[in-house]
Amino acid sequence: MFSVSSVSRVNDAAIRQRIDLKTKPPGSLGSLETLAAQLAAITGTEKIKLQKPVMLVFAADHGIASEGVSIAPPQVTQQMVTNFIAGGAAVNCFCQVANMSLHVIDAGMLSAVNSRRVIDQRLGSGTANIAISPAMSRETAEAGLQKGADVLRARHQEGSNVFAFGEMGIGNTSAASAVLAALLDLDTQETCGRGTGIDDAVFVRKQQLLGQALTRHRSMDDASDTINILASLGGFEIVQMTGAMLAAAEAGAVIMVDGFIASVAALAAVHIAPEARGYMVFCHRSEEQAHQCILDALGATPLLDLGLRLGEGTGAALAYPLLLSAQSFYNCMASFDDAGVTPV
Amino acid sequence: MFSVSSVSRVNDAAIRQRIDLKTKPPGSLGSLETLAAQLAAITGTEKIKLQKPVMLVFAADHGIASEGVSIAPPQVTQQMVTNFIAGGAAVNCFCQVANMSLHVIDAGMLSAVNSRRVIDQRLGSGTANIAISPAMSRETAEAGLQKGADVLRARHQEGSNVFAFGEMGIGNTSAASAVLAALLDLDTQETCGRGTGIDDAVFVRKQQLLGQALTRHRSMDDASDTINILASLGGFEIVQMTGAMLAAAEAGAVIMVDGFIASVAALAAVHIAPEARGYMVFCHRSEEQAHQCILDALGATPLLDLGLRLGEGTGAALAYPLLLSAQSFYNCMASFDDAGVTPV
Repeated sequence: MFSVSSVSRVNDAAIRQRIDLKTKPPGSLGSLETLAAQLAAITGTEKIKLQKPVMLVFAADHGIASEGVSIAPPQVTQQMVTNFIAGGAAVNCFCQVANMSLHVIDAGMLSAVNSRRVIDQRLGSGTANIAISPAMSRETAEAGLQKGADVLRARHQEGSNVFAFGEMGIGNTSAASAVLAALLDLDTQETCGRGTGIDDAVFVRKQQLLGQALTRHRSMDDASDTINILASLGGFEIVQMTGAMLAAAEAGAVIMVDGFIASVAALAAVHIAPEARGYMVFCHRSEEQAHQCILDALGATPLLDLGLRLGEGTGAALAYPLLLSAQSFYNCMASFDDAGVTPV
Repeated sequence: MFSVSSVSRVNDAAIRQRIDLKTKPPGSLGSLETLAAQLAAITGTEKIKLQKPVMLVFAADHGIASEGVSIAPPQVTQQMVTNFIAGGAAVNCFCQVANMSLHVIDAGMLSAVNSRRVIDQRLGSGTANIAISPAMSRETAEAGLQKGADVLRARHQEGSNVFAFGEMGIGNTSAASAVLAALLDLDTQETCGRGTGIDDAVFVRKQQLLGQALTRHRSMDDASDTINILASLGGFEIVQMTGAMLAAAEAGAVIMVDGFIASVAALAAVHIAPEARGYMVFCHRSEEQAHQCILDALGATPLLDLGLRLGEGTGAALAYPLLLSAQSFYNCMASFDDAGVTPV
């Protein structure tokens, strides 16, 4: 379904040398040097070329939300999508500052928003309750990977080569925690967190329901297959994000991964095509405790740690200026030779 | 010399309410909410107004550099200032991305750079070697505070209300470590770090020289007076930054503090006028270990932690888009009422 090539390593030495000859002590730009090296390997050794940055926000609903596992009721998904297209949400503000274009995808909300500014890729009206039954069929999950890829490829055709991924879906930390537990063979106690801020009683209930979902899932055939995991425990937005990330990697584009939910999609993408990892920039350390399990599994250190727990792609939009700064120093900063500075 | 008023707290409740009514769970934007509340208290409750952001880079030389305590020779200060005005340094690249105007001040380099693009505020041709004698006289330190204030006030007159502070000066982590030890009554073992990357042998020598400087300083009369500390152990760029920060606080402007050296100047400013603290945004956690002592003393958590150890104001320039994002969500994000979203 996806044919992802590894990021080429053939120019690594040239890239490293270019960075080390800039007018600064070696390594003194810290993780911005690592970032610049990655962006150069992906987009061009001579010049980093970040073009037409795009934020894709995938929205969907979750059957498990009917159990009251979130601080907000399910209709908030639709209300927030309306807010996105009106320009009123946090991700709109941050995309405007970062000069990123924002696209909102209905991957399967309970009810569609009637607007041509929402890209219709509905896989259904919310998933089934994963505590009781599979979220969706395997066929639907496969269709979701494809639809996610489609929306990415259309933007890539328009000249974009850097994509950020956000989501909106009341209940989606539950789905993400379940998928994570299945992908890394963890207990749901380890992957279940407090989402945007649930209290103790709801937290206990959420853990219980996720435990139930995992027990159900693990009794299936081929329970460790990634697409089966996404179908059984995932969400429509998670599966479409996974497909979109794989298509981005296939296109040789930069993948900006936001917080917890987006990182679960990224992990699923890497389980499907390990070569996708090299295209990913992890933008923000989520307050969701289990995020660290994903970062450890993928050997990733996020650029920002601002205590966000909102999703929507906010962490990725906030990080984009750091990618621009990495591009700028790599492309424009003088070398010791250029500037007549004594090398250190 | 400086008349700094505390940041007004009278609108704190209104500011907090405004943030809490935005379409997001309370607190879910983490430290960006704290930042927005601070910027609103400084620049306006109704709308945050960040205007004409300015980066001021103060350059100077240090007598102690002749002892070889840095990875670079003293002439690199002048070479890098030439690089700044040619637009080739890291801080140039990052200011361009952040849309900040950059001004370079010669606070007292060994030799002046012959260019009208360098603001001449020379206090001498480098300080004396602090291991042996005071860096400068008390009168020179007072003149330095004044000159720093002058350059700030001129930019404030032109309509700027947000100022970032950077520095260039081979040997200036030595001066900053000595000033820090005196300000917080610490041992130089605790405040002496590796600057931009010295080896073990140089590190031992640097510690020894700083111990010697502190012993000399502590035998003076009024050794705990802040201006005496700056005169005895400081640098021309450090004292001018301190004066400029105090003038910024006096003008009610936002002070963006970069890494270690700028934070030592900020600490000195707060020792002179404690009210200045409320105007300060700490932008980057320096790799210099003793930076944490300053952050603890000032109760500060920096916005970024990217492993930088370059100075020049790079961490502040990289952080400025986060201030713009805080401004944008505070001013433009919809409330639950505006957007018809169910409050959480």
